[in-house]
Amino acid sequence: MATFIEPKILKGFRDFLPPAEIARRSLLERIEACFRSYGFAPIDTPALEYAEILLGKGGGETEKQIYRFKDNGGRDVALRFDLTVPFARFIAEHRAELSLPFKRYHIAKVWRGENTQRGRYREFTQCDFDIVGSDSPAADFEILLMMRNTLQAIGVGDLTIRINHRGLFNRFLVNLGIEEKSVEILRTVDKLGKTGREETQRLLLELAGKDKAQEILRFIEARGGFEETLQIMTQAAGGDSPESQRLALIRSFMVDTGTAGSFVLDPSITRGLDYYTGIVYETFLNALPDIGSVCSGGRYDNLAGLYSKENICGVGTSIGLDRLIAALEALGKLDTTPTYSKAAVACIHEEAAGCYQALADKLREAGIPCEVFLEPGKLTKQFILAEKKGLRWLIIPGEDPLADPLTLRDLGKRENRENLSLEQIPGIIESQPL
Amino acid sequence: MATFIEPKILKGFRDFLPPAEIARRSLLERIEACFRSYGFAPIDTPALEYAEILLGKGGGETEKQIYRFKDNGGRDVALRFDLTVPFARFIAEHRAELSLPFKRYHIAKVWRGENTQRGRYREFTQCDFDIVGSDSPAADFEILLMMRNTLQAIGVGDLTIRINHRGLFNRFLVNLGIEEKSVEILRTVDKLGKTGREETQRLLLELAGKDKAQEILRFIEARGGFEETLQIMTQAAGGDSPESQRLALIRSFMVDTGTAGSFVLDPSITRGLDYYTGIVYETFLNALPDIGSVCSGGRYDNLAGLYSKENICGVGTSIGLDRLIAALEALGKLDTTPTYSKAAVACIHEEAAGCYQALADKLREAGIPCEVFLEPGKLTKQFILAEKKGLRWLIIPGEDPLADPLTLRDLGKRENRENLSLEQIPGIIESQPL
Repeated sequence: MATFIEPKILKGFRDFLPPAEIARRSLLERIEACFRSYGFAPIDTPALEYAEILLGKGGGETEKQIYRFKDNGGRDVALRFDLTVPFARFIAEHRAELSLPFKRYHIAKVWRGENTQRGRYREFTQCDFDIVGSDSPAADFEILLMMRNTLQAIGVGDLTIRINHRGLFNRFLVNLGIEEKSVEILRTVDKLGKTGREETQRLLLELAGKDKAQEILRFIEARGGFEETLQIMTQAAGGDSPESQRLALIRSFMVDTGTAGSFVLDPSITRGLDYYTGIVYETFLNALPDIGSVCSGGRYDNLAGLYSKENICGVGTSIGLDRLIAALEALGKLDTTPTYSKAAVACIHEEAAGCYQALADKLREAGIPCEVFLEPGKLTKQFILAEKKGLRWLIIPGEDPLADPLTLRDLGKRENRENLSLEQIPGIIESQPL
Repeated sequence: MATFIEPKILKGFRDFLPPAEIARRSLLERIEACFRSYGFAPIDTPALEYAEILLGKGGGETEKQIYRFKDNGGRDVALRFDLTVPFARFIAEHRAELSLPFKRYHIAKVWRGENTQRGRYREFTQCDFDIVGSDSPAADFEILLMMRNTLQAIGVGDLTIRINHRGLFNRFLVNLGIEEKSVEILRTVDKLGKTGREETQRLLLELAGKDKAQEILRFIEARGGFEETLQIMTQAAGGDSPESQRLALIRSFMVDTGTAGSFVLDPSITRGLDYYTGIVYETFLNALPDIGSVCSGGRYDNLAGLYSKENICGVGTSIGLDRLIAALEALGKLDTTPTYSKAAVACIHEEAAGCYQALADKLREAGIPCEVFLEPGKLTKQFILAEKKGLRWLIIPGEDPLADPLTLRDLGKRENRENLSLEQIPGIIESQPL
C-alpha cells in the first residue's frame, strides 16, 4: 500500500478557495482604487529581510513572534512582521530617489508566530498608507480623510475615528509632573478598552499615586463635542500650545469637508507603539463597536532613525484586512460572488471545442467573462453545473456553432431564448440586472 | 556618535519603487483580467508550509534552493518555491469542496535561494493557471488559447507557442526500443537550447548508441507545417495513436479559432519536469527569441498523487512575470507611468487644506485621481513639483477655494485656463488625450 503525505497546512495559516479569494480581491481592489484616487503610489519590499533590519533595537514581543532563521548562505534573516519597519528601511535606502513629501501605499502579507487562540492568524494582509516628509496638519488630515472615505467606499457603514495627540497628552503629564512615567502611562491607558476601568485605575494608582491617577482618569474620560473636549484637554495640559492649535486646525478641515460627524476627539486613545509623536487614531464601526479598531495609526517624528541620521517625519495608517473582512461578514455586506463568469458555452460535441472558444471569445471581447464547458453531456446536467457555478447564462450552440442560430438559457428565470445571433447575446446579457 | 544599521536588502531580493511597481501592477491587472474573462477563479495558499509537503519525494535541486527552517514551535517549515506543489496539496485537501473540472489561477510570490549571477532573483512572482479534473483535448486547447491571448493582450507582439506531446515522444522511444532511458533522454533533449546541438548529440550517443542517437536527432529536428511534422512524428512513433489523434484535434481547434499561426509542433520541446505526461509547451516572443520561454507548462496525469490516492489529472501553465517584464522593457513596451494621479490641487494657504480636499474629492468622484499639495509655496515651484511627478494638470484655487473661480494649469502645454467653475474641470481633463 502506498503511503501518502497528509495534505495539511500550518496552524494560523489559511487557504483561500475561490469564493473567499474573490471577496478578498474585490475588497482590495476597492481599497486600492481609493488610495490611487488620492494620488498615492504603490511600492513593494521583500518578504524576507536581514533580521537586524527588522528587529532594530529589538523588542520583547516582536522578537518572540518573528519567523527568523539562517538562510543557506548563513545570513540571519526573518519574514517581515509589519510594513512599517520595511518602509523605514526603504526610505533610508532610497532617500535620494524619492521626492518629498512622498505618498505611498503598500498592500502585502506579513507574518507573526502569534497565539492563534483568539482568531488570530500567523499570515495576514496589511494595507498601509503614509505620507512622509511633511509635518503639515494638511498631511494629518489627508490621512484621516482617506481612512474615512476608503472605509465608506467599501460599505462598512457609519464609523467613528477617535483621535488624540500624543504631544498634548505628554504636555498634560508634564503639567502633572509625571512626564518620566509617560511611556508606562500611555501603555496603560492604551489597554483601557481591554483591561477595563477598574484595572486601569489600579495600574495608574501604582504608577502615579492616588491624586494623579484621579487626574489622569479625569483627563482620559473627558467627553463632549470636539471643541469642548479640546478645551478641557488644553486646560489640563497647561494652556494653549502648538498641539492644541494643530488639533483645532484639523477640526476646521473636517468642518470644511463636511466630514466632522465621523471624528471624535478622545483623549484615551494613545496607541501602544513608541514611535508615535503627534496625532494618533483608531477607527470603530458604529454597527460593530466590539470588533475593535479596523484601521489605526498616527504621526511619527523620525521614521528612519535606526538606519539614517536624516530625520524623516510622517503620518500613516494601517488597515487590517482580516478584521475588515470579519466585520463585513458580520454585517452581511461581504461580496460573495462565487465566480467572475457571467456566461458559459455548453459543450455539445467534443470536436467543436475550437468553435465554442471562438463563440466565447466574442463575448469576452464584449467585456463579458465567459467559460467554455469542456465535456459533452446532457443539457440538463450542464444547466445544473452552470447553476452550481453561480452563472446566469448558458449559450447552447447548434450543430454548426458559428453558423447556426444560438439558444440562450436564462438560468435565473429557467427559460430559453431561441434563434439568436451571436451579436444579439452581449446586449441581452448586459440589459439584465444581476 | 550614534551608530546606524545599514539599510540594505538581501542579495536576489528587490524593492519596487513606484514607477516599477505601477508597471508591475498594470501588467498583473491585464493578465488577471484575461484569466477572469475565461472564467478562471483565483485561489491563494500560505507562503509558508510544512517542508515535508513542499519537498515531497525530495529532489536534489529543489532541496538545495529552498528556504527551510524550524519555526518557534519546532515545526520543519519552508517557503513555497513554486505554485504547483501547493496547488497539488490544495487539491488533495479541498477535493470535497471543489467541483471538477476546476479552473483556477494563482498569482503570488515564490522564493528560491538560487545563484543570482545570471540576473535571477530569489523572490519572484509566478502567474499560474490550470484546469484540473478534465482529460479532454478541449482543456489542453483552452490553456493554449489563454496563453496566446493573455500574452497578446499585454502587447508582447507576435509569439510562437511550441508544442509537443510527452506520450508521443515516449511511443517513439518504445518504437526505438530505448524506453527505459526515457527520463534521461527527455532531459537531454530539454537542454538542447542551452547546450547546443553538438553536446546534445554527444550525450545522446552515450545514452543510446550511434544509430539510435541519429534517429532521436532526426525525430527532434523534424520541421514543417503542423500536419507535416505530426505525420513524421506519428510514423516514427509506430503509426497512428491516441496521442497523434489528440494533437490533430487540437490543431483543428487552432484552425477553428483562427489562431493556428501562433502554434508550432516542435518535437524537441520536452520540459525537464517529471510530472508531465501529455502535451507540453513553451512560448517564445518572435522579436526576442533569445530571452527564452516566457510561459510554459503541460498536461499531468496525477497532480496530487503524493497526498491522495485519487488520481486528478490536469493541464496548466506558469507565466514568469519577471522575464515578461524584462521582455517588455527590451521591446520598449513597458508602461512607465510614474503616478496614478492626473491632477493636483495647488496649496495657497495652509489653513485651506480642508477646502482643497473638498475640491479634490469632486474630481475623485468624477473618476479623476487627484492629489492635494500639502505645503504652501510659490506657484512656479508647485508647477515644477507637479511636472516632476508626471502630472498633466494643476488646479489653482482662489482665496475662497470653494466659491472663487479656479485656474487650471495645463502642464503639458504650459498654459493656464482661467475663470473656470469646479464643474467644468473634469470635462476639460477627460477631453484631452494623455
